[in-house]
Amino acid sequence: MTRPVTIALDAMGGDHGPSVAIPGAALMLERRPDARFVIFGDEKEVLPLVEQHPKLKAVTTFHHTEVSVKMDDKPSQALRYGRYKSSMWRAIDATKTGEADVTVSAGNTGALMAMSKFCLKSMAQVDRPAIACLWPTARGESIVLDVGATIGADARHLVDLAVMGAAMARVVFDLDRPTVGLLNVGVEEIKGVEAVKEAGRILREGNLPHLTYHGFVEGDDLGKGTVDVVVTEGFTGNIALKTAEGTARQVTDYLRAAISRSLMAKIGYLFARGAFSALREKLDPRKSNGGVFLGLEGIVIKSHGGTDAIGFASAAELAYEMAREDLMAKLREMVAASTQPAPVAAQPADAE
Amino acid sequence: MTRPVTIALDAMGGDHGPSVAIPGAALMLERRPDARFVIFGDEKEVLPLVEQHPKLKAVTTFHHTEVSVKMDDKPSQALRYGRYKSSMWRAIDATKTGEADVTVSAGNTGALMAMSKFCLKSMAQVDRPAIACLWPTARGESIVLDVGATIGADARHLVDLAVMGAAMARVVFDLDRPTVGLLNVGVEEIKGVEAVKEAGRILREGNLPHLTYHGFVEGDDLGKGTVDVVVTEGFTGNIALKTAEGTARQVTDYLRAAISRSLMAKIGYLFARGAFSALREKLDPRKSNGGVFLGLEGIVIKSHGGTDAIGFASAAELAYEMAREDLMAKLREMVAASTQPAPVAAQPADAE
Repeated sequence: MTRPVTIALDAMGGDHGPSVAIPGAALMLERRPDARFVIFGDEKEVLPLVEQHPKLKAVTTFHHTEVSVKMDDKPSQALRYGRYKSSMWRAIDATKTGEADVTVSAGNTGALMAMSKFCLKSMAQVDRPAIACLWPTARGESIVLDVGATIGADARHLVDLAVMGAAMARVVFDLDRPTVGLLNVGVEEIKGVEAVKEAGRILREGNLPHLTYHGFVEGDDLGKGTVDVVVTEGFTGNIALKTAEGTARQVTDYLRAAISRSLMAKIGYLFARGAFSALREKLDPRKSNGGVFLGLEGIVIKSHGGTDAIGFASAAELAYEMAREDLMAKLREMVAASTQPAPVAAQPADAE
Repeated sequence: MTRPVTIALDAMGGDHGPSVAIPGAALMLERRPDARFVIFGDEKEVLPLVEQHPKLKAVTTFHHTEVSVKMDDKPSQALRYGRYKSSMWRAIDATKTGEADVTVSAGNTGALMAMSKFCLKSMAQVDRPAIACLWPTARGESIVLDVGATIGADARHLVDLAVMGAAMARVVFDLDRPTVGLLNVGVEEIKGVEAVKEAGRILREGNLPHLTYHGFVEGDDLGKGTVDVVVTEGFTGNIALKTAEGTARQVTDYLRAAISRSLMAKIGYLFARGAFSALREKLDPRKSNGGVFLGLEGIVIKSHGGTDAIGFASAAELAYEMAREDLMAKLREMVAASTQPAPVAAQPADAE
């Protein structure tokens, strides 16, 4: 893609609305000066902020919207009053019509997913969408999906997740054949749920292009970065994600408490300040902010609702990368390849 | 219980067998001098080690066994060759016959659970056993179950887990009404899987004795210690546990790397050494070693297979506490109370 990337922004989403989204977009533009924006929101709130960032203003098309989806609305409520006219809907629709290449919102996840499904529709051959996130690991980053779009998964859906996660890994990590693991409770073939075992069989025997199936991985493989893509259904994925976030916070809280308890430790902290700020940066959740909705006819990025401008800029930059490398084209190619009749021996009918 | 607590030990389990189990038992005996032991294992390996600990020897009854269950055996294999005669089986059987009050083994989890089920049988009214663990939190410790005994759970099984976890919390934390939360992907009533929602309804309306139902909790509530008992099915629980262990290791690895990168940081480390060793102790997985098998007619504690004598001593001490406070009696009482016909309005037949 050589034309500039255009990002549709729902400026009203998140706990802080445009006061985070607009400075966040401006910050991201400094790093990606060829980006363009289409921004949707309440002109009274958004335009004064855009005025403060002349470079952003110069590359922005603004659309006034009267309706904003609230953070605590149920998806059905949000759809009822926000369809066609809220900043969230219009930002999604801009990606559908082609006015933008990708959509970013910090709005409530349930509403954003419901509207994205309704507006963009599912990709052909993908039953259900997923949310993928970047997971910081000892080796760098991995992609983990699904972290909460849908609850429960049969083998076919897990294979879809593997294929979509691998397509995203090709874009984000610039790999030709990312490694993919299925999250399970043990590495022995015998363990785990039937759907996971069946998905493992399909991935092993399917020999899919652009993907190397690693096998089962366990919870502690997430942080190790054992594979590029970790696949699990949305309930477990969401709990794993929040458990890891909580544990990281818990350990750093312990560390802070231990250091503030003695004068010697505080002196030590002064000497080691550089190391502590490196640790803080390494663990900064704003750096890996951005859940990617996959499986729809368009890419939507969900920014964390409580993040600040730095975090929002990360989500916008992730959106930029997805569009720049044409994630949708890679998704279509890989999903199509994975649903060809597999060149393996015929299976008995009851083994489907 | 005023008579001494007798612990049955499978001395051959774990990666290091008696070389960890025997010093571990001796270490635990220093802290709980009224404990007694029944030890099962190969006399050639075990007895020389027992000889090195005269105090342990004085309170130990030893039984020679020819067969040891291997760490990589499948449960079915272990049952086939180890039933009735392995050190693992005999240690479990000692709790069944009353020769011991509780069993400890560092042997392979699948085999230990299979033998425990076969030997001890399920408690009346409990369909499936669970493994509970102590989870270090910002407030102290919580109990989390199931961390891997069975995959999948219907509402009734989740309620059983809540009741059994609360019984354990009464013993371990000395609480009359521990708080119980159901692990879910959101705190809103609308979210999550059907079984979790239904279990929430039963727990809310059932008004069970000795248990305060808190509601849904999320992955990050585990580390916060929001509730005394966190209930989830074994697949998700196992992945959450291993994810947390992995994340804690990842953060401390980052910290170590950051500190070793500069001389200033190394000097700081020397000053703050006390704080770092406090952190290390706080995060020491050996302190919370021990998975408790619940739902069987007897208590079995699974020690981590790779732990050392300090970790094994923690598991043995946990076993001691469970027996000392008569966990089995509390389990029977609470399970019976929870399966009384609930004093609520009659439900339509299809809502069972």
